[in-house]
Amino acid sequence: MANISSPTETERCIESLIAVFQRYAGQDGHGLTLSKKEFLNFMNTELGAFTKNQKDPGVLDRIMKKLDLNSDGQLDFPEFLNLIGGLAQACHESFINRVR
Amino acid sequence: MANISSPTETERCIESLIAVFQRYAGQDGHGLTLSKKEFLNFMNTELGAFTKNQKDPGVLDRIMKKLDLNSDGQLDFPEFLNLIGGLAQACHESFINRVR
Repeated sequence: MANISSPTETERCIESLIAVFQRYAGQDGHGLTLSKKEFLNFMNTELGAFTKNQKDPGVLDRIMKKLDLNSDGQLDFPEFLNLIGGLAQACHESFINRVR
Repeated sequence: MANISSPTETERCIESLIAVFQRYAGQDGHGLTLSKKEFLNFMNTELGAFTKNQKDPGVLDRIMKKLDLNSDGQLDFPEFLNLIGGLAQACHESFINRVR
């Protein structure tokens, strides 16, 4: 029997990105993209700490517009990954500035 | 006392991306970038299942060259995120093709 080792931290992270995207993208039965409603639901649930900290009520609309590269009113998985990447870079920069 | 809720799956994933990058980037004491050696160590340890499946021994060199956008022989965090994003997209596509 092949030795199936448990997933590494990086593999679990990639699995999570796919699982979270599918969980929110599938809510309207069309599981390939996040509609505006699904995106807002994702931001308020998965990133509530970030979202509640935003003073400007229009910030989520602007984030969605910026991410929606092909302007189809939906976020596909690559566009979703750009959101995660942007947040991870912001967190990494603040982490680096704290340890300097 | 403010109610500090446990991190969501997305927050844990972002934390993991930073923690894993710092774990390998810091091995040479210079914790801001992955050297070639640190990148190979990361690929063989964190993504061993992917790496061992590659028939071509030169594939990791080509991946590093492709990711190293500013050709400084190092991978910074944004360049590292492009690797994770590329792998996540490949996994997502195979996931979608399986459920179709």
